[in-house]
Amino acid sequence: MTFSQRLDQIAGLTEARLGTLVGTKIKHPERDDPIPPRLLGALRHATLGGGKRFRPFLVIESAALFGLSERQALDTAVALECVHCYSLVHDDLPAMDNDATRRGMPSVWKAFDEWTAILAGDALLTVAFEILSTPEVHESPEVRLALISALAKAAGAAGMVGGQALDLEAERLPSREAPTPSGILHLQSLKTGALIRFACEAGAILGGGGPDERAALHRYGTELGLAFQIADDLLDVEGDAATVGKAVSKDAAAGKATLVSLMGIARARAELKRAEQAAIDALVPFGAKAETLIEAARFVAERNR
Amino acid sequence: MTFSQRLDQIAGLTEARLGTLVGTKIKHPERDDPIPPRLLGALRHATLGGGKRFRPFLVIESAALFGLSERQALDTAVALECVHCYSLVHDDLPAMDNDATRRGMPSVWKAFDEWTAILAGDALLTVAFEILSTPEVHESPEVRLALISALAKAAGAAGMVGGQALDLEAERLPSREAPTPSGILHLQSLKTGALIRFACEAGAILGGGGPDERAALHRYGTELGLAFQIADDLLDVEGDAATVGKAVSKDAAAGKATLVSLMGIARARAELKRAEQAAIDALVPFGAKAETLIEAARFVAERNR
Repeated sequence: MTFSQRLDQIAGLTEARLGTLVGTKIKHPERDDPIPPRLLGALRHATLGGGKRFRPFLVIESAALFGLSERQALDTAVALECVHCYSLVHDDLPAMDNDATRRGMPSVWKAFDEWTAILAGDALLTVAFEILSTPEVHESPEVRLALISALAKAAGAAGMVGGQALDLEAERLPSREAPTPSGILHLQSLKTGALIRFACEAGAILGGGGPDERAALHRYGTELGLAFQIADDLLDVEGDAATVGKAVSKDAAAGKATLVSLMGIARARAELKRAEQAAIDALVPFGAKAETLIEAARFVAERNR
Repeated sequence: MTFSQRLDQIAGLTEARLGTLVGTKIKHPERDDPIPPRLLGALRHATLGGGKRFRPFLVIESAALFGLSERQALDTAVALECVHCYSLVHDDLPAMDNDATRRGMPSVWKAFDEWTAILAGDALLTVAFEILSTPEVHESPEVRLALISALAKAAGAAGMVGGQALDLEAERLPSREAPTPSGILHLQSLKTGALIRFACEAGAILGGGGPDERAALHRYGTELGLAFQIADDLLDVEGDAATVGKAVSKDAAAGKATLVSLMGIARARAELKRAEQAAIDALVPFGAKAETLIEAARFVAERNR
């Protein structure tokens, strides 16, 4: 199986399980209260119908290093994807990034309205923790709690939400000091890095990895997240709308500083190459078992070539 | 100590603990990344500086039925208050209820801006689950997971968020069928009832109560939540701004149906009286230990007399 086939396979598993969990009753089979139909429609619009499902892929493949099956890591992967989808729904709002399209479809606020999008995002964030509290995630309560704690830290004010706040602050409050590469790196390590790092560490948590293994996956996730972001910024500058599926050069149009705009394309490409190699190096302790995660680092770095 | 003094006492404990947890680093003493200052300011604005802290009171007093100290129930109470505060921050947004004031202060989006308010709400919802994952909440991992599961259900698409969706749908999409008392009851049992019910059940979860005790507190919480909402609706019609601390008759101005507008004041008062008594009756199994919760039901029902 090629890497792309494996990615597609996990995307299919994720989509199917999301469809079940974000179903007619989010995890409330015992109750008569259905989710209001409009809200449910927004939840399904926000979560189903495509996406690479890269974070679920990382959860499942990092768990595989410890001998876990796809099925044993799937619900953790789906919980994380719910958090990722919520962040997209809120980021697209007019008061945030004001994006009317997402993956070639109307974004949730555009397809429904702003209040439905706000509530749908809130519900997706909430259901992620509901999913992680269930025994299907892992038989050990301590493992479930470790996942909940790590995901909350990664997603919260000192993680993803903090990174989004820094990003909007830099864009909207220009009285602040000029952007620097280290400031951008910090912002991005929170905004996009935190969930990717969590995805990789989740495998070690699920698989009962020791501190060294968890640290190795932390390092891998950190470098991978950086590579992911630089590649995204390069795509924003160089890509075309057909490839990316969203409006291109939006960052430039918004006057948003990125590593690419601060360092130039050549240095950004060099930094991307360095991060790709550092991610791969972090996997050395896992030996041949890490082949798919190594390919993931190459995939991330090469997707704009 | 009078009931009011007890309520104030718990509010003071809650405020102090919120101030610590929503501090310079939300639960991240081990990390160097501070929360971005603007976001932190919004989090403190959203959580500190008053409020009756009625839900924390219910958590602590329902836990006291099982012999737990305030300290043993406080972090659960604070986690719930974070969810309540997040819901207020998002509900006040222009796209939702468009409230510029809250407790006599500018609401978060007015004091900061919309994007900061959206992110602050997201961060508060997230930190609630982070808090509940910590051993300070309860030594038993199973108890912490039961709290996380119950709070996620109460707050999510089949709970509070679902209720808010139904409320906005009724207001904004008037093509729907005319409001009925049973429809309003259902909406309110989700929108305001779910968190109040969770507050009461949390005591039984923390205290290791059996199914009968949990069911009794569920019934108490359900009737109390109903009484709370009817009293609120009556205040909206009859109160004055000085008492309520927010714009009055906003529901009427918005053409929003309430039990009071559908049933009339006299029948609403009768239903309030019935719910108050039903709440008190639900506490019979706890005997004299339930005195403070009985007073709470009276307090809720009488606050507009």
